[in-house]
Amino acid sequence: MSRPETPPITHIATHTDDAIYVRDASLVDELIGKVSFTDMIVFHLMGRMPTRAESRILDAVLVTLMEHGFTPSVIATRMIALSSPEALQAAVAGGLLCVGSQFVGSMEAAAGLIDEVLAHPDGPEAGARIVAQRHRTGRLTLPGFGHHLHRPDDPRSPRLFAIAEEAGVPGRHIAALRTLSKAIDEVYGRHITINATGAIAALLGEIGMPAEIMRGMAVISRCAGLVGHIREEQQHPTARKLWDTVEHTVEYAGSKGTRG
Amino acid sequence: MSRPETPPITHIATHTDDAIYVRDASLVDELIGKVSFTDMIVFHLMGRMPTRAESRILDAVLVTLMEHGFTPSVIATRMIALSSPEALQAAVAGGLLCVGSQFVGSMEAAAGLIDEVLAHPDGPEAGARIVAQRHRTGRLTLPGFGHHLHRPDDPRSPRLFAIAEEAGVPGRHIAALRTLSKAIDEVYGRHITINATGAIAALLGEIGMPAEIMRGMAVISRCAGLVGHIREEQQHPTARKLWDTVEHTVEYAGSKGTRG
Amino acid sequence: MSRPETPPITHIATHTDDAIYVRDASLVDELIGKVSFTDMIVFHLMGRMPTRAESRILDAVLVTLMEHGFTPSVIATRMIALSSPEALQAAVAGGLLCVGSQFVGSMEAAAGLIDEVLAHPDGPEAGARIVAQRHRTGRLTLPGFGHHLHRPDDPRSPRLFAIAEEAGVPGRHIAALRTLSKAIDEVYGRHITINATGAIAALLGEIGMPAEIMRGMAVISRCAGLVGHIREEQQHPTARKLWDTVEHTVEYAGSKGTRG
Amino acid sequence: MSRPETPPITHIATHTDDAIYVRDASLVDELIGKVSFTDMIVFHLMGRMPTRAESRILDAVLVTLMEHGFTPSVIATRMIALSSPEALQAAVAGGLLCVGSQFVGSMEAAAGLIDEVLAHPDGPEAGARIVAQRHRTGRLTLPGFGHHLHRPDDPRSPRLFAIAEEAGVPGRHIAALRTLSKAIDEVYGRHITINATGAIAALLGEIGMPAEIMRGMAVISRCAGLVGHIREEQQHPTARKLWDTVEHTVEYAGSKGTRG
Repeated sequence: MSRPETPPITHIATHTDDAIYVRDASLVDELIGKVSFTDMIVFHLMGRMPTRAESRILDAVLVTLMEHGFTPSVIATRMIALSSPEALQAAVAGGLLCVGSQFVGSMEAAAGLIDEVLAHPDGPEAGARIVAQRHRTGRLTLPGFGHHLHRPDDPRSPRLFAIAEEAGVPGRHIAALRTLSKAIDEVYGRHITINATGAIAALLGEIGMPAEIMRGMAVISRCAGLVGHIREEQQHPTARKLWDTVEHTVEYAGSKGTRG
Repeated sequence: MSRPETPPITHIATHTDDAIYVRDASLVDELIGKVSFTDMIVFHLMGRMPTRAESRILDAVLVTLMEHGFTPSVIATRMIALSSPEALQAAVAGGLLCVGSQFVGSMEAAAGLIDEVLAHPDGPEAGARIVAQRHRTGRLTLPGFGHHLHRPDDPRSPRLFAIAEEAGVPGRHIAALRTLSKAIDEVYGRHITINATGAIAALLGEIGMPAEIMRGMAVISRCAGLVGHIREEQQHPTARKLWDTVEHTVEYAGSKGTRG
Repeated sequence: MSRPETPPITHIATHTDDAIYVRDASLVDELIGKVSFTDMIVFHLMGRMPTRAESRILDAVLVTLMEHGFTPSVIATRMIALSSPEALQAAVAGGLLCVGSQFVGSMEAAAGLIDEVLAHPDGPEAGARIVAQRHRTGRLTLPGFGHHLHRPDDPRSPRLFAIAEEAGVPGRHIAALRTLSKAIDEVYGRHITINATGAIAALLGEIGMPAEIMRGMAVISRCAGLVGHIREEQQHPTARKLWDTVEHTVEYAGSKGTRG
Repeated sequence: MSRPETPPITHIATHTDDAIYVRDASLVDELIGKVSFTDMIVFHLMGRMPTRAESRILDAVLVTLMEHGFTPSVIATRMIALSSPEALQAAVAGGLLCVGSQFVGSMEAAAGLIDEVLAHPDGPEAGARIVAQRHRTGRLTLPGFGHHLHRPDDPRSPRLFAIAEEAGVPGRHIAALRTLSKAIDEVYGRHITINATGAIAALLGEIGMPAEIMRGMAVISRCAGLVGHIREEQQHPTARKLWDTVEHTVEYAGSKGTRG
């Protein structure tokens, strides 16, 4: 490993003794007190301030993903908070490790399908049909579709579409997702709901966010939700009882130590 | 471990087939598209919507802590992003583990000092003097004071005070911190700046946030900053060069394997 | 922050094009295939190979802490494995975040009490009595004592003492812990068991391991246990059912969304 | 989500008031003090005690992966240890998040190639040639081959093969990897070393470990190495200097805040 010849370069931030600059804006003079946290997320990530419409859409996305009850991420966070109450950041970090391929983190895969539908040379209808058939034939998971709880429809998705349309967006990604949804219902012969992560993949596509960073929005939003659960754990603890419940639910398959 | 007799109880959320409720508000009908992410953080955590002043103050706090260059949290995040680009959430989680006692997570300790100053039976001046002298005598770290980069003053603190005062807050915590600052300068015989985490401890105190959850605000804010650094790492990678630089900087104290 | 004037120095490892040295031993020629993993842990950490007795004791410690059923660490790990099966390392990491102050990580606090007993100028009996009384009076947690499951006695502790004595150790730390145990039973007026982390704190003290790194042994041991649980989750999944059970156990305190 | 109808089942462990059983063996009477940590890892994971040969091989694997200098995992761990010295487990966890697809965690992908070579209907030579050509044509990463430091050969691999052969193993996986190596050198027209993770994939295959859990061995081994680095950080800190070095190495691409 030879010493690098050119230095690593960042476009994000620098500082002097008496100033901090984020993407060339003075943190103290131009950002603190002048922009919302949501706007700052866009500015930091994409290097430009969002339009009012984009800002509304991102707020809606971040509000949507914060909370959905005692999900795996909340359970993990509460177990860590019980074990290491002195390390709040660890409890959040452990819960965020659940934002993976299976649940909230699935939006980038959904965005990939939307992009595929949009890019098909014979138009979105043809693209949607091909995507639907490939998933049906291969019995593949359909990212952005279906929900184990919300049936027949995830109530968050139509609301998210309505907000985006009200705010005013080009609408291409949302249209492509709807086209895909129609093709899926036809090919599968039954209705499968567009779930919240599917709708969010379309909304974030509308504001120009690249698919490979979309999961980051789920991480930021869920991070805030997990802090709320830690606060509740501080005031009204549940983790010990959850642990006890799990202990009494799991059965041991061996022959030893049979309880009661 | 006996099976728990009463069930664990949550005040945060529940759901039905077609609705999600967060603190009894319908996520879909009353929250998504109607409140900002910042407002939702307060509502989720504290069970009430913030006033306009509180909302402005929390935005300022969250914007302040998002970014400060290649801090330990950013370095950790970029190392993980280099090693596991497929697990964005892990890179964020690893960086958040740096929000501990030494840097951004120090605000709860600062809030503790402010509370001690406020609670002193002989008034804040007496309390401030005692806190300052105890730290001076015991050569203790002064949470909320001093900064290794920003000298003589951290530029973020006066700006944060100005925003809070402009927004309109009771002002007790800010006043107590200023009293403490004066006592510290006198007892130490030199000026030690109120740093950003100190100022933030006061501001969050003003909006009624309990000290033991304040670190959560640093975690949420830094979470967003780390997502921005991962995005840069995807587009303009630096981690490999940083690793090479570290490799060439560290010297081995043993006798073997001396490199050129 | 000025550029450091002297380089950071490591005593652990270096490498050349064709060799890796760990504490001046050639990894390839002197370590791989010649020492056990347990011996390598001591060599890497303490810079010397363990005696046969020390090696036996550390093996016993690492075997002891690997497994204790569906603890918070196992629950956290399985939740993450369910959510991100593609990131095995994240599931382990999340579970390890549970090795904190409350459970397996408590051995350093126990070691602190043993050291205090040993250091008392009037001898261990006097030291033990003072420690016991301070904890009784202040209603403080007694690290290394008591167990929520194993009553009246944690079966692991006498076994660990027997192994250490059989292997041959100075015995000072074990004797001090027993003295402390006697004092505690007297002061509290009832028998409180020495638990496994208490016994381990004494054993690790016997082999010269500093208190501030003892938690690391719990981390290594539990790490291996968590890998076993992930393997079971791959073959015989439980996490989804555990999640469902938690969902049905937690009750919502609000008025909305009451489920049947 | 309906309540699960059958309980979740574990084959790993159970406990009573006075005993703990791991895979039906009494932890206290049959395992602690009687088996090494390495043997316990196999027993816990695979449900059977290893043979002497398997035990030696796993020791060699675990010793091999513990240490390789200031890798990304070590850098991440030291950054977290600097920031949260009170949470040793978090520093380890953060470093382990680096055991991903790019470095030490790549052994499962290497095992996949070995399995493909072994399974080819026309024999391993044919399988090896196809694998080599597919990677060459697609310019794909070759898991288990190449090393950025060790050229022309990774010294760990021949040593690992020698230990396995000396210990006595069937040898099919090692033979397949050598066949693949030969095919790669021919197809690429130059020698590409079998690296340590490649060799380890073959060795773990020889002892019957499934590919999907192999990364777990890297995690356990590296976990121990990271504990050693935290201990050094406690005694001879480097992290602050590494941070300073990084700060002075990264250049800001914007126009503001240029530092002299």
